[in-house]
Amino acid sequence: MNPKETLFQQLDTLAETVARKLSDQGLTLSSAEACTGGLFAARLTELAGSSRFFDRAIVTYSNQAKLDHLEVRPETLEEYGAVSPETAREMAEGLAQVSGSDVCISVTGIAGPGGGTEEKPVGTVFVAVVHQGQTHVFQAPTVNVNRIYNRNHSILFMLDVLNQLL
Amino acid sequence: MNPKETLFQQLDTLAETVARKLSDQGLTLSSAEACTGGLFAARLTELAGSSRFFDRAIVTYSNQAKLDHLEVRPETLEEYGAVSPETAREMAEGLAQVSGSDVCISVTGIAGPGGGTEEKPVGTVFVAVVHQGQTHVFQAPTVNVNRIYNRNHSILFMLDVLNQLL
Repeated sequence: MNPKETLFQQLDTLAETVARKLSDQGLTLSSAEACTGGLFAARLTELAGSSRFFDRAIVTYSNQAKLDHLEVRPETLEEYGAVSPETAREMAEGLAQVSGSDVCISVTGIAGPGGGTEEKPVGTVFVAVVHQGQTHVFQAPTVNVNRIYNRNHSILFMLDVLNQLL
Repeated sequence: MNPKETLFQQLDTLAETVARKLSDQGLTLSSAEACTGGLFAARLTELAGSSRFFDRAIVTYSNQAKLDHLEVRPETLEEYGAVSPETAREMAEGLAQVSGSDVCISVTGIAGPGGGTEEKPVGTVFVAVVHQGQTHVFQAPTVNVNRIYNRNHSILFMLDVLNQLL
């Protein structure tokens, strides 16, 4: 079995499942994306009718964008770095504040090939979700195949988290 | 020749060309996306090293998001609709204001399969670019194959516009 095919097939199935759960529950969803660069939003809005549940995405590729749009504190970026559970939490909570969406998900990680360190190797990814007034923070399994694979793996993890929470 | 393959191959080539021009000229790029749902940002940030030029994307799928993040005026949405040259212009200019990026591109259109009207059929797409203090507004050729194709065609048009302006 080709592991790439499996990943992309899983993505299609999970995206449809999450979309159906959101629609059935009448919930809106927004995303705050760093390493995935809009790919999570692109995947969900690929589905016809996604405007029923998808509200907005803020793709904060630069740190300045995280401060401007998501109210991430500069001290958080300085102390913990952009790729950290703390930054993921503030991204999701900031998005919840500005969007008012029912479910807000954030992702920050190192897609590679550059940017890895000993402490945070390529493939390190943190995800946070604000849902029903609570923030849940996760670290994805660290996977490093290549940049495209890693970004899609991040989305798979995000969809899996949403599927379990919804 | 498979027209889909051609489209997707062109996308890869054009994305790399635009990325190289931006990097060579030391320019930053941001996008404001409606119908493409983040796919333009996702395509450009797929390239390793894209953090050198890509700043942020604001995916304003809902009209409220256009008002919140891009300073689009409610009267513009009411009078001309979300899919219009006027809204495209305000999205790009609003993004230029909030981001300070050197080049700001917006896109609004009808990806289908629903949402088309006689006046604005599925495949109608408007793009605006703010570059060197000027705003350029374009209408893409109206193409309707299917939702995925239409969204990728929008991105092809956006990349072509940037390639010509840079």
